[in-house]
Amino acid sequence: MGQITRFGISMDSKLLERFDEYIEAHSYANRSEAVRDLVRDRLVQDEWRHEDTETVGTITLIYDHHQRDLTEKLTEHQHQDHNAILSTMHLHLDHHHCLEVLAVKGKVKTVKKIADRLLSIKGVKHGKLVMTSTGKNL
Amino acid sequence: MGQITRFGISMDSKLLERFDEYIEAHSYANRSEAVRDLVRDRLVQDEWRHEDTETVGTITLIYDHHQRDLTEKLTEHQHQDHNAILSTMHLHLDHHHCLEVLAVKGKVKTVKKIADRLLSIKGVKHGKLVMTSTGKNL
Amino acid sequence: MGQITRFGISMDSKLLERFDEYIEAHSYANRSEAVRDLVRDRLVQDEWRHEDTETVGTITLIYDHHQRDLTEKLTEHQHQDHNAILSTMHLHLDHHHCLEVLAVKGKVKTVKKIADRLLSIKGVKHGKLVMTSTGKNL
Amino acid sequence: MGQITRFGISMDSKLLERFDEYIEAHSYANRSEAVRDLVRDRLVQDEWRHEDTETVGTITLIYDHHQRDLTEKLTEHQHQDHNAILSTMHLHLDHHHCLEVLAVKGKVKTVKKIADRLLSIKGVKHGKLVMTSTGKNL
Repeated sequence: MGQITRFGISMDSKLLERFDEYIEAHSYANRSEAVRDLVRDRLVQDEWRHEDTETVGTITLIYDHHQRDLTEKLTEHQHQDHNAILSTMHLHLDHHHCLEVLAVKGKVKTVKKIADRLLSIKGVKHGKLVMTSTGKNL
Repeated sequence: MGQITRFGISMDSKLLERFDEYIEAHSYANRSEAVRDLVRDRLVQDEWRHEDTETVGTITLIYDHHQRDLTEKLTEHQHQDHNAILSTMHLHLDHHHCLEVLAVKGKVKTVKKIADRLLSIKGVKHGKLVMTSTGKNL
Repeated sequence: MGQITRFGISMDSKLLERFDEYIEAHSYANRSEAVRDLVRDRLVQDEWRHEDTETVGTITLIYDHHQRDLTEKLTEHQHQDHNAILSTMHLHLDHHHCLEVLAVKGKVKTVKKIADRLLSIKGVKHGKLVMTSTGKNL
Repeated sequence: MGQITRFGISMDSKLLERFDEYIEAHSYANRSEAVRDLVRDRLVQDEWRHEDTETVGTITLIYDHHQRDLTEKLTEHQHQDHNAILSTMHLHLDHHHCLEVLAVKGKVKTVKKIADRLLSIKGVKHGKLVMTSTGKNL
């Protein structure tokens, strides 16, 4: 955390009333924290429009480990991209299904490419890429 | 526009710097207007989580009017829901393709149902529902 | 509509059962139409990742026409981009609020820029860009 | 994997050509796998519209661990929901920033509530909920 600036916002009272209800429903400590969250969320969305930005993402996969060769393929693909894949979390959801989450760091286009490649493997039943951020300047 | 309230927001200077760049890139007049936009956008998203809220949406359809019976089906479906469909705009994109936009007013669940029904008709090549708002209290 | 190709899909029976329920709930005529819709929707999403593709979008705006100078600003902005803006639909939602939908044709980056510019105008309470398509090759 | 059913899909040849390009660009083994992915993705989206469905989600958080009391608050919140939180992965992105991913299992409304609560804590700079699935019947 660096230096803090304080500035004023003017808002229609009815709109502010509804925003205050939202703030309470989502357990924000105060208006500043809620506004900062909206701002950061929008900046992160914007960041991902530029293919060469250095960023961080997480890839969530649901797969059936009984699918032949799947574990080998997943491992092989991940080793190809070992520079970008920071860490992996693995959970056994039931007798068949695994949840795997990968934390990935790299350029926007690299992170998207890795996600595309993993999501298309046979046996991967569902997958999503979360586009987040390195946290710097946020 | 009713009464205006003014309140203070504190923000890390680096974050504010990036937000100011965003404000300039998107041609906002000032920080207040940009913050109000973020707040309203979030409130509208929230509104659409409740199936019984009265709201407004627009449905965008791309279709090939040479598809047999399509125009009849679209007209028939729209008459079924004539209470909710406020207006329609129609454009001829090329020899084959039409763009049609419907403005719809009603409960969230009604608007979604109408969109589902129109998007599934054969010949409708693409369609999207925009969930917006009546504008009240925004 | 050009030539039709027929091809086979293999699917786990339980997954197919759930898909058939989805097809019925959304009133699709058959599996082919539902699959084509999923495919077209994905291709349109993909299309919008390339800034130079020629495409079609619709911009939905909710605004308060009592806001000073707003109508003038909206008109002025739209005339700047008159080459890209094909048509406009306007509705009076209540004493204060208007719904305006613009059909826009041009490169992805142009359509996005027009949307950004209109959404940031003071008095525009909510707005959304729908990224659709010219319909060609869909 | 249970019993497999095979069924036919008819598609305009031009559309199929573009789909085949998509399939190659995303490294799918064949059309069946690509169609199954589209179907599963849509069914998961649909599942999350029902608040009482049992499901699985992952919550990605970026936070600054130097923020006073943040680690304590995060731990405390997570213990409140220890029944639903299956596992956590933690990474040190730089001197300040942590990436934390939580795997959560429970009803749609519970998973959303947990995400809302964590994302609103001061010091959490960015967060996203991925709505995925238990994998059953997918």
